[in-house]
Amino acid sequence: VIRTAAVVGTGLIGTSAGLALSGRGVCVHLLDVDESAARAAAARGAGTVGRPEAPVDLAVIAVPPGLVARVLEQEQRRGLARSYTDVASVKSGMTSAVLRGAPRPGSFVGGHPMAGSERSGPLAARADLFEDRPWVLTPTPGTCRSALNDVLAAVSLCGAVPVVMEPEAHDRAVALVSHAPHLVASLMAARLRDAPEQTLRLAGRGVKDVIRVAGGDPGLWTDIARANAPAVAAVLELLAKDLLAMTEALHALAGTDTGAGPAEDALATVRETLARGQDGWSAVHGTEGTPPGGKVTLTVPLDARPGELDRLMHSAAESGVHAQDIRLSWSGTSPRLSASLAASLPTAEGVRRRLADGGWQVSAAALT
Amino acid sequence: VIRTAAVVGTGLIGTSAGLALSGRGVCVHLLDVDESAARAAAARGAGTVGRPEAPVDLAVIAVPPGLVARVLEQEQRRGLARSYTDVASVKSGMTSAVLRGAPRPGSFVGGHPMAGSERSGPLAARADLFEDRPWVLTPTPGTCRSALNDVLAAVSLCGAVPVVMEPEAHDRAVALVSHAPHLVASLMAARLRDAPEQTLRLAGRGVKDVIRVAGGDPGLWTDIARANAPAVAAVLELLAKDLLAMTEALHALAGTDTGAGPAEDALATVRETLARGQDGWSAVHGTEGTPPGGKVTLTVPLDARPGELDRLMHSAAESGVHAQDIRLSWSGTSPRLSASLAASLPTAEGVRRRLADGGWQVSAAALT
Repeated sequence: VIRTAAVVGTGLIGTSAGLALSGRGVCVHLLDVDESAARAAAARGAGTVGRPEAPVDLAVIAVPPGLVARVLEQEQRRGLARSYTDVASVKSGMTSAVLRGAPRPGSFVGGHPMAGSERSGPLAARADLFEDRPWVLTPTPGTCRSALNDVLAAVSLCGAVPVVMEPEAHDRAVALVSHAPHLVASLMAARLRDAPEQTLRLAGRGVKDVIRVAGGDPGLWTDIARANAPAVAAVLELLAKDLLAMTEALHALAGTDTGAGPAEDALATVRETLARGQDGWSAVHGTEGTPPGGKVTLTVPLDARPGELDRLMHSAAESGVHAQDIRLSWSGTSPRLSASLAASLPTAEGVRRRLADGGWQVSAAALT
Repeated sequence: VIRTAAVVGTGLIGTSAGLALSGRGVCVHLLDVDESAARAAAARGAGTVGRPEAPVDLAVIAVPPGLVARVLEQEQRRGLARSYTDVASVKSGMTSAVLRGAPRPGSFVGGHPMAGSERSGPLAARADLFEDRPWVLTPTPGTCRSALNDVLAAVSLCGAVPVVMEPEAHDRAVALVSHAPHLVASLMAARLRDAPEQTLRLAGRGVKDVIRVAGGDPGLWTDIARANAPAVAAVLELLAKDLLAMTEALHALAGTDTGAGPAEDALATVRETLARGQDGWSAVHGTEGTPPGGKVTLTVPLDARPGELDRLMHSAAESGVHAQDIRLSWSGTSPRLSASLAASLPTAEGVRRRLADGGWQVSAAALT
């Protein structure tokens, strides 16, 4: 159990951890070389400024990645805490540095909360930053079980979901799902830097989302890219190949009016790449609670009166069926539009009853 | 003035236009080769299914880009409308095809509403899809003024902001702010397709935003990429160069512990690319109402009591000052934290008064 904690480095992550732990009754001490940052964190309610008089249960080292090993060594010598963790987004190199230099390596568990913002500093901190987010922990064979349990307790108090991984596997994973996407967004954003004003006026939500993370601190991301350089380079290398193939395909298409011959191959390259992209999108989004078990299709006849479909979509949404799970069909023989709703097996009966209560004629329920 | 309209093609854009125009009192006829799509659009309230008996004021040809020229030619022969526009996202090739084939080229104005969604079809349509979005129009020297005015009236009824451009300039602009970012997002998403489940679990809001548009219809985007192939290839070619330079820099950094010699150059490449990306991000976001004129700095002393800063940030936000315009400072000589708020010249006095009313001691107001 964690009753006292110290946050070393009151930036976005450290202050958010302080807010979350303080909110759950932990007595948090805030330390930062920039005392105004620690004071700002305290003013937000993340804890009190200054060193504890006795060792705390857990110290969260939330300094930039390049400083973790040194700060950890210092703080362990001073006896700041019983257990230690960090929040650096690259783990393998740092873990070896820590194991080499720290006086008490067994009391340290590497950590990486998968949460953040394109904004930084204590003012951007939020108590719920880690809520339901994965928080990777990278214990080694030499890690004490009590240290691991202290860190697990803190992760739970922050509302995050602990995920234990090997440091190297973590680094490869974040290269793919975080660092490479960040650099790609930055490269795309960099291309927009000198665009004419009229061109920028046409920028919509699409490109803004693609480049959103590029608004982040270049210094921090340079450190991250550097610390995870081999894994990130491996992803970017494959991406550069794909990009060159796409560029070649577009050159082959330029100026051709029909899809015959070489243009047909080029078109297939573009189409297949986009389809692979859609699969990747589904893979990333599919992890968010695809319900187990089969689906039930509920069919509802409609009169095609204005507003009727919106009313059905509203009822469906209220009973947990999303718009993408609704299909419309219309047959010439019976001149009526009907909507098919796909509901997961455990919820289907509830959906059926709620629609029927709403006056809808739920005409069929077929297992698919 | 537009009193009657026809929408040919009741997908996301056509149905949204139907919803917006119907909502403003226009009598809209809905046509689609897939009658169930037209019926779904009607059920949403976008108009009535079927051909008008007399020519309507404006026909919005909202079919896939590759079909616009053919559908326009057919509908002009049938006399569907007085004026015509389309919504295809590539304009130069199509404009020449239209001018070649259409019986009444002067009654057509090319159009491209800069709005959309990764979802498609009439169910995803929204009456406010175009609200405050740019809607590009590409009239040619042969365009009738009355046709241009009909289309401008419809754009206004949809709540969009008309922007007149040359077809070629439009295509270069959208290659940079829409098509290339889309393909980049797809390429990144494609790399995630075969990632292990544990890796995908770590995917957060960052990568999800980067790849969001990759969820879009591959068929539609293949058509778009094909139609604008030369302009998109030009952007991707530059991007591939940047990506290779970044990859090389990361390879040079891999395995080096210090930033000396060649590693220093590589580090500079990474840092400068990220900084250019941040500039590009600012360029894209800077177009959203940077207030004209100078800024005023208001300084407020704080007691660093928990919650105090949140209360100040709340008051500031209410008076139009955002968190990124608030800086904190703390000096050792007077042991107090203070917050500096940057407010634009026209609003500064209102902010000052509101903060003072809230009990804050606004101690200084310096022009910067």
